[in-house]
Amino acid sequence: MRIQAEPVFLRLSTPFRIAHGTSTERNNVLVHVDSGVGVAAITPYYPAQVPDVLAYVCDQRTQQALDTDIRFIEDILDALPEGPAPARAAIEIALHDLWAQTLGQPLYRLWGLNPARAPYSTFTISMAEENEFRQRVQEAARYPLLKIKLGTGTLEGDEALVRMAREESNARLCVDANAAWTVDQAAEIIPRLAAYDLMFIEQPLARHDITGWHTLARRLPAGMPPLIADESIHDSRDILPLHGAADGINIKLAKCGGLREARRMIALARTLGMKVMLGCMIESTVGVTAAAHLAPLVDFADLDGFLTVTNDPYEGGVIWDNGRLHLPDAPGLGVHRHSQEHA
Amino acid sequence: MRIQAEPVFLRLSTPFRIAHGTSTERNNVLVHVDSGVGVAAITPYYPAQVPDVLAYVCDQRTQQALDTDIRFIEDILDALPEGPAPARAAIEIALHDLWAQTLGQPLYRLWGLNPARAPYSTFTISMAEENEFRQRVQEAARYPLLKIKLGTGTLEGDEALVRMAREESNARLCVDANAAWTVDQAAEIIPRLAAYDLMFIEQPLARHDITGWHTLARRLPAGMPPLIADESIHDSRDILPLHGAADGINIKLAKCGGLREARRMIALARTLGMKVMLGCMIESTVGVTAAAHLAPLVDFADLDGFLTVTNDPYEGGVIWDNGRLHLPDAPGLGVHRHSQEHA
Repeated sequence: MRIQAEPVFLRLSTPFRIAHGTSTERNNVLVHVDSGVGVAAITPYYPAQVPDVLAYVCDQRTQQALDTDIRFIEDILDALPEGPAPARAAIEIALHDLWAQTLGQPLYRLWGLNPARAPYSTFTISMAEENEFRQRVQEAARYPLLKIKLGTGTLEGDEALVRMAREESNARLCVDANAAWTVDQAAEIIPRLAAYDLMFIEQPLARHDITGWHTLARRLPAGMPPLIADESIHDSRDILPLHGAADGINIKLAKCGGLREARRMIALARTLGMKVMLGCMIESTVGVTAAAHLAPLVDFADLDGFLTVTNDPYEGGVIWDNGRLHLPDAPGLGVHRHSQEHA
Repeated sequence: MRIQAEPVFLRLSTPFRIAHGTSTERNNVLVHVDSGVGVAAITPYYPAQVPDVLAYVCDQRTQQALDTDIRFIEDILDALPEGPAPARAAIEIALHDLWAQTLGQPLYRLWGLNPARAPYSTFTISMAEENEFRQRVQEAARYPLLKIKLGTGTLEGDEALVRMAREESNARLCVDANAAWTVDQAAEIIPRLAAYDLMFIEQPLARHDITGWHTLARRLPAGMPPLIADESIHDSRDILPLHGAADGINIKLAKCGGLREARRMIALARTLGMKVMLGCMIESTVGVTAAAHLAPLVDFADLDGFLTVTNDPYEGGVIWDNGRLHLPDAPGLGVHRHSQEHA
């Protein structure tokens, strides 16, 4: 099979400000395997960058792994070398697209899934000054689930954002602290935020603070919103250490390295009685659509990462219908090249 | 969808003597869901018996769960009620057969598997007096992997069986104690049996003796054959308690309740770095073939449970080629009704 990498530079209609920093554009690398397409979403705060993806695609072992009948996709996945998660995810997505095209079915159908089971997606409101923040919440009035990014630097600032969102919207709210709090801060603010009937609270603590997660779980009173681990959970090996501390996990293809590992993580979380959330990075519809094919298996979806991209080279994948996710009937992922290439 | 249950009474060409007792026949219940077929393998030493399977099939909630488009098989599996594992397995197998028929593909292809990756199956030699035992081993001379059933009542008797098998055959050997030993006995005999270069040792201890498994692991020297848990592992919830004590798990559809749970168990075992073995009961080719579709995912296969059945109503599934397993190309499981019904 022929593999090609195509770096793309995504421009965002709205600056994306979270605890890790502010972005107005993001790098993606599209990966093509014959007629299949995948994408590596590059994030500034994780180590894998564009040259790492290109190096993985060009690795001779990667090329050798692709010298296999696509119908035996599991053999190909077994043969792919270890490598940066976004790069592996890109190739896995392209292989699944090609595999499902070859079998003539939408990918979700080869997993036996009913696309109507996908939960509504949250819509993310990133941090901004008060007037702009209130305006963004108002503009999102049609969306039933809003995810508020926290990490302003003070607990008062964080709670103020949630209060403003509550004032401007009737949506169900959830929050994402993006690792901004200490254990003490989290133990203080979470009970206060619980008054806003949050659907979940994502990543209160620093990524590697596993002990902190367990301490926090012991210090919080009963009845808190579920705590979902995001930055602390990359692949299935990270789940067991958080069992008993986090209530759920946020799976992203660019963190775990692909659809097979994502499905393993879902299986493990279900065995452990943990909630499953499915997220994405800021990325082409190629990556969001790939994740959306898994959405019927999860409790929470956060798949809005393609909405502010103004120059996506692909279209035709998952449709965002005010937070409801519609998957196409076409074989494979169901995405296709944008009919008019962007300037 | 229409569901029907059909009890069948399987006769065995060779009496099957293991630590749990001796059988010359076994009950199975075939379950038909439209054109899909599955089977519930009934074992004398597990609680679920034929009436339990019939009750599950006739349960109104079971019937309601089947009132769904077969393409959304995951929804059906979610909606099926809890119930006896062999009964659930039978319906799950029939549903997967029907699902894959509907999509026009062999089941393994819908999992992206290469059927040529299935490991060779072991061939089981059950316990017998010396002359008969030696003769059975000789008759199995063409098979590369022999599994010797132990549990004679004495460690000397058990080791004698392995020694005789070694004398009569060049095959790679493994053993299954079927829960026959105490921790002290296991700690004594396992190092002695290791001299026979066993591929694995299955279920040394009593089913519920989880503490014993951990004690045994601490008492054994390094370099022992992998210890595989069978009776101690029914479904994915049983795996974590044995992590660090058992080296692997033996998955059987009639224990875990179906193909989806089996795949969850494989995912969990892989995450924990445990070996995976796939077994079966004494059952129709329908059940062995269903398990064989999973075989490319596992390390060890023990799928000879249909070989001594003389009146199987089904044929055309997995082919036993001296221990090598060949899966059919036909859509679904690939089994069909025997062309001449047995008397």
